[in-house]
Amino acid sequence: MAQNSEEQSLLVGLLDPSSQPNQNNTTKKRRYSRCKSAPIAEFTLPKKDGRGILPRSESIFGKFHPSFMKVVIFLSLYLGVGTLCFVLAKNQIKGEKTNGILDAVYFCVVTMTTVGYGDLVPNSTLTKLLACAFVFMGMALVGLILSNAADYLVEKQEVALVKALNMYNNVGEFDILKEIETNKIKYKFLLNLSLLLLLIMAGTIFLTRVENLDIVDAFYCVCSTITTLGYGDKSFSTEMGRIFAVFWILTSTICVAQFFLYLAELYTEHRQNLLVKWVLTRKLTLVDLEAADLDDNGAVGSTEFVIYKLKEMGKISEEDIALIMREFENLDVDQSGTLSASDLLLPQSSQAEK
Amino acid sequence: MAQNSEEQSLLVGLLDPSSQPNQNNTTKKRRYSRCKSAPIAEFTLPKKDGRGILPRSESIFGKFHPSFMKVVIFLSLYLGVGTLCFVLAKNQIKGEKTNGILDAVYFCVVTMTTVGYGDLVPNSTLTKLLACAFVFMGMALVGLILSNAADYLVEKQEVALVKALNMYNNVGEFDILKEIETNKIKYKFLLNLSLLLLLIMAGTIFLTRVENLDIVDAFYCVCSTITTLGYGDKSFSTEMGRIFAVFWILTSTICVAQFFLYLAELYTEHRQNLLVKWVLTRKLTLVDLEAADLDDNGAVGSTEFVIYKLKEMGKISEEDIALIMREFENLDVDQSGTLSASDLLLPQSSQAEK
Repeated sequence: MAQNSEEQSLLVGLLDPSSQPNQNNTTKKRRYSRCKSAPIAEFTLPKKDGRGILPRSESIFGKFHPSFMKVVIFLSLYLGVGTLCFVLAKNQIKGEKTNGILDAVYFCVVTMTTVGYGDLVPNSTLTKLLACAFVFMGMALVGLILSNAADYLVEKQEVALVKALNMYNNVGEFDILKEIETNKIKYKFLLNLSLLLLLIMAGTIFLTRVENLDIVDAFYCVCSTITTLGYGDKSFSTEMGRIFAVFWILTSTICVAQFFLYLAELYTEHRQNLLVKWVLTRKLTLVDLEAADLDDNGAVGSTEFVIYKLKEMGKISEEDIALIMREFENLDVDQSGTLSASDLLLPQSSQAEK
Repeated sequence: MAQNSEEQSLLVGLLDPSSQPNQNNTTKKRRYSRCKSAPIAEFTLPKKDGRGILPRSESIFGKFHPSFMKVVIFLSLYLGVGTLCFVLAKNQIKGEKTNGILDAVYFCVVTMTTVGYGDLVPNSTLTKLLACAFVFMGMALVGLILSNAADYLVEKQEVALVKALNMYNNVGEFDILKEIETNKIKYKFLLNLSLLLLLIMAGTIFLTRVENLDIVDAFYCVCSTITTLGYGDKSFSTEMGRIFAVFWILTSTICVAQFFLYLAELYTEHRQNLLVKWVLTRKLTLVDLEAADLDDNGAVGSTEFVIYKLKEMGKISEEDIALIMREFENLDVDQSGTLSASDLLLPQSSQAEK
């Protein structure tokens, strides 16, 4: 455990260039010697999605990336305005009605998730055009939820899942974090799948008990709802049913969409791993060596090799390298081909002049 | 134009390490001197998505990436089997019927796109469960179409669009390709938007003419369909209408989904550009220099700088570097810290032993 916490502070140092120079220096030396000897899994905690590598870039992301709170605000606003509109225009909506406000919320949710049973339909030019506007905004909102909130919530539950899976093994907090980082998408997928099965069961049981459907009809209605198909021959017609539906439809349709997203992610990761493996194990030829030799000194250094292989893996492009190279030339005031402390004194001012 | 074709052959050399050593050598030398002097835009044709950087990795992708043909085969298979099932079980489907086979195809398309009007609904346990199976498979298939075919088709039309936009300017083929590479997502988005507006108009006009809806109802039905809402109060009830619907629903629902995907992509690209700009323009400190100095020799070489900045941009992770570093250590048989021709003679055999 003592070694573990040492590893962790090592990681913090690695991932954070803004830590004190001294500490950083030790870190750096250790890393390089580790690269020469230690197996990878021991010393890296991969941050695959690029977030969290550097605290500074994270703050940039935080500034432009809509947060979880934003999603909650947008959703409340959407449902609030939607409900108000359809309560005011309740006489211009036809179909099986229960309670005015409840029907309006239910209609909003059924519309924004694109389930569209058709048990309540707009019946005037105004409400028809309103529904058109609300369905497009709803789709954008569901997209926002999928890109932010859903993933965020699943991620928060990961530690609990891995702990539960390893209940009988004596594993430390750090091992759990490492296990999660390595199999991030797999665990997210498993969590999502469990939640989905739970939602399907809950929906089926509810429909048989409260809406008095037989088991096949209940399951059919559940499938038709969570996939946003919504034929509408079976739907929620009681007051109790619609209260349940508002929460259940929103959760389950997003859960199914997220399921397909994780499936695609798993597949992409698998393909990427195959590519990385192939790039790393294929025979290196003289042609490769010449192509990788960026500074043209007849030998390929470790960093040249890293850049060459990263390019081959498709992770970076010529353009990325060229952009950074240009910045390097700008910074290298004494034209020595390397950046050292002396270069830093001048360029900071020449940079400011631009 | 002569210079352009020279540029192009230069690019081919840059992007293809398997070209002859001699040619490659010239290419490499030129590139490095260009990095020192020429503006970037002149010498790189960015391949942002990582595809096509290297012909070899592309072949790997080709092997594992479902192709356009696969999508066509899957779609035909899905519609074929679906139609057969629902033609055989046509007495177990209730609703507005026209022609047996046509209704079955129409029901399949309405189900797989999750529009689910409800004008035709399964009426027995068998057909209900069949519909459940078909909607899940349909969603996966639509996902496959979105991830492959739709983007592929739009990409093919890009050259035509840029040519049309620059009709009055005298631009060469190479300039068009460069323009497309730089604003790839923007052009895809514009193309997609044009197609979407065209489909909305076509649908609205068709519904007013053939299904005899008034203009508001027609537009409402179009919106309710392309968003896969499908309330079902307005749908295609004539034989002619359903023939049109089969093609139009499939195209327009995919077009809308692709629209939201491109919108998200545009936003992500914008954010990524902000991050790259910030990473490249922020002041370099002594702490950064120490962190970037991988080989710990007191100075930061150009390749060390590239790796450090790429990490800061979130394009690569510690794990990526560590993996490649380990491979480098394996290849560096004489432990010289660089790879040269002499290293290549031994490791090839030692690699094979593993």
